[in-house]
Amino acid sequence: MKLPTSTEWVLHCAATLAQLRPAETASAAQLAAYYDLPAPYLAKQLQALTRAGILSATTGPRGGFRLARAAKDITMLQIVEAVDGAAAPYECREIRQQGRGGLTPDECQETCPLARTMAEAHTAWRASLTAVSLADILAELPSGAPTRTRRILMG
Amino acid sequence: MKLPTSTEWVLHCAATLAQLRPAETASAAQLAAYYDLPAPYLAKQLQALTRAGILSATTGPRGGFRLARAAKDITMLQIVEAVDGAAAPYECREIRQQGRGGLTPDECQETCPLARTMAEAHTAWRASLTAVSLADILAELPSGAPTRTRRILMG
Ligand code: FES
Ligand code: FES
Repeated sequence: MKLPTSTEWVLHCAATLAQLRPAETASAAQLAAYYDLPAPYLAKQLQALTRAGILSATTGPRGGFRLARAAKDITMLQIVEAVDGAAAPYECREIRQQGRGGLTPDECQETCPLARTMAEAHTAWRASLTAVSLADILAELPSGAPTRTRRILMG
Repeated sequence: MKLPTSTEWVLHCAATLAQLRPAETASAAQLAAYYDLPAPYLAKQLQALTRAGILSATTGPRGGFRLARAAKDITMLQIVEAVDGAAAPYECREIRQQGRGGLTPDECQETCPLARTMAEAHTAWRASLTAVSLADILAELPSGAPTRTRRILMG
């Protein structure tokens, strides 16, 4: 069970964009230099966040990415699922209906207790990541962080 | 983020072995026929559960697998991690220390809030699966299940 390496990239890029002033944007190249990441691959991930409605992209010479809504309205889960999808890690293929021991569809009208337990764990994971917003993350950074971030990113 | 397909196999096999009487065992071939699974690959997974101390394997003509301890002392998490390992799905590579924006190691003595939040979600997932034992799963099966299971498995 692995999340893509780019999950760390986009979480950090989103937290970085959350430190800009309302009208400001940052390009994929600026963010890639800030974290020493491969710009074309990072750009693809930022586009995925844009499609998910977390970032908005502006074009033109001063174009770039910014948050599509307030940092308090963007959860960790939304960012992670924009990159990795929302599918649960456990997939039930109804093996209880297979083989010599197979149950009939009639006997399987309720969700298998094993599948249900695995789904509950995924729900707990999602709830944990829903409870934390980008604003919560920003609140944990040192007070000088936004000024430093903007200076280096835009510089 | 995906768990191996064999996770469903071993969860069901463990629940099946939990329905046997104390002295009884079932072979990989019997379990494979019960669920219509590929026997050699299933045997490898059952051996992983044996190495993890969840099953014990007896050899000889009447040999096979049984639970290594009481069903109430085997958690869902132990079974899942025997197959998939205990590594967290999110890996922090300390990208906050990379690139133009890189922080110094001194500034990174505390865990990054993004990494910590991801770790907390994994802890919530593990706690959810620790709270459910094989005995809890058995308690949800219809009362006639163990008799049927043993008849088909051993028959
Ligand atoms: S049938 Fe899929 S988890 Fe039980
Ligand atoms: S440095 Fe890895 S999550 Fe922040």
